[in-house]
Amino acid sequence: MRFTEKLAAVWQQHNSLVCVGLDPDLDRLPEHLPKNAEGIYTFCCAIIDATHDLVCAYKPQIAYFAAHQAEGALQAVIAYIQKNYPAVPVILDSKRGDIGSTAEQYVSEAFVRYGADAVTINPYMGYDTAEPFLRHADKGVVILCRTSNPGAADFQDMDVGGRPLFEAVAERVAQHWNHNGNCMLVVGATWPEQMARVRALVGDIPFLVPGVGAQGGDVEKLVRAGRTANGTGLVINSSRGILYASKGKDFAEAARAETIKLRDQINLYR
Amino acid sequence: MRFTEKLAAVWQQHNSLVCVGLDPDLDRLPEHLPKNAEGIYTFCCAIIDATHDLVCAYKPQIAYFAAHQAEGALQAVIAYIQKNYPAVPVILDSKRGDIGSTAEQYVSEAFVRYGADAVTINPYMGYDTAEPFLRHADKGVVILCRTSNPGAADFQDMDVGGRPLFEAVAERVAQHWNHNGNCMLVVGATWPEQMARVRALVGDIPFLVPGVGAQGGDVEKLVRAGRTANGTGLVINSSRGILYASKGKDFAEAARAETIKLRDQINLYR
Repeated sequence: MRFTEKLAAVWQQHNSLVCVGLDPDLDRLPEHLPKNAEGIYTFCCAIIDATHDLVCAYKPQIAYFAAHQAEGALQAVIAYIQKNYPAVPVILDSKRGDIGSTAEQYVSEAFVRYGADAVTINPYMGYDTAEPFLRHADKGVVILCRTSNPGAADFQDMDVGGRPLFEAVAERVAQHWNHNGNCMLVVGATWPEQMARVRALVGDIPFLVPGVGAQGGDVEKLVRAGRTANGTGLVINSSRGILYASKGKDFAEAARAETIKLRDQINLYR
Repeated sequence: MRFTEKLAAVWQQHNSLVCVGLDPDLDRLPEHLPKNAEGIYTFCCAIIDATHDLVCAYKPQIAYFAAHQAEGALQAVIAYIQKNYPAVPVILDSKRGDIGSTAEQYVSEAFVRYGADAVTINPYMGYDTAEPFLRHADKGVVILCRTSNPGAADFQDMDVGGRPLFEAVAERVAQHWNHNGNCMLVVGATWPEQMARVRALVGDIPFLVPGVGAQGGDVEKLVRAGRTANGTGLVINSSRGILYASKGKDFAEAARAETIKLRDQINLYR
């Protein structure tokens, strides 16, 4: 099934816009788990088992695996989701971006090696660096637009002909990059006003929304700013707020409770 | 030794501005080598043995390793360079970029796991995403500015207050990001006019220059545009033109010959 169809189906089936970000930080794993690739795998699978019916996506952040030679664990975690919870798409968060011949290798990394349903990419290098991803119509391509971090404004807000750069990126994606209908945009929860402007520019293109929870994004504001007419259009990610709700043996139950809380809070405003 | 000192020393010692890009494409490896991680390792080490006295840096492109589960080979290749040719710095080309907590993991990936001397990063997300790299004063941080690919103009040339975005990036790096003196900028060989503008803005900050060889950059124009007063300031990368000079058992000799040719051609105009 195409990524976009899978996402539309799971939004309805689970009545949830929550994405759990899998950022397994060795320093923050529950105390009883080993601080290695095996611990990472056990941790992620337990989180997944405890939340799979509450989410519309999982988003593993590759940096947390790569820093610890745990690419094998990342492959195994994605395979675990796809075997046990095939309705839930996997967005590989790797923010890749490079010239065409190299981008082809990153396409293999994301879609062949890891078998992800979607991948995040960085637009700075331009269309030809995105095209090798975009041509995979069955896969989602999630392009950085207005990110959630404090420094997002440094370049993304620079005025380009009367509007900020991130709006130019959004418009370019909507008008030229989305010819297969498989694009998404990263728009941070921490900037609801900017999110509303992007929504006005791009129609129903879904947003991947980082920045709720630990980063402090306001759920009501972001949902009102970013939802589409049918009350979807958002994949709202929380990582640390869910993963590290408890450091004890009850970490998975605590993660489930936090996920329910976030899902319900979001659903209040859809 | 700090990366910047290592680079200054090897420029003189080897009288060369050539960087060999290690992009081991399985489809283009010499016919007698196995098409797997072992073949990648053997290939890269043979190229390194044949060129080590002719170069100022090696630049492994992580995508070519990651696509084939060959991170172990990448670690081994970097260790091989550092053991046998410690004068030659290694620039890990991974173009990472993410929020602070994730950037810390990418720092571990580049500088701890792989032990690279320098790493390429993408500026789109702003200062706080670069800072975890920049604070490692002994390491080089190579920031995308004006890339070599055709789509570079899409966003990098957008007018921001009377100048293109890539100039704003260059200036920001020179004035605010380079407080440890460890920044470099990526400026493509395919755009000598833009390179001259960046050089005028940033003083002696070294450039990593992709785009000669297969991508068609003109060596005379780029050296005249980008060199600093002492005839250095450039790390001029060639990957495919050197690596795949021959598909036969003489691939390493052919690579050596191409490297000499490029070094000498560059030195004509320094």
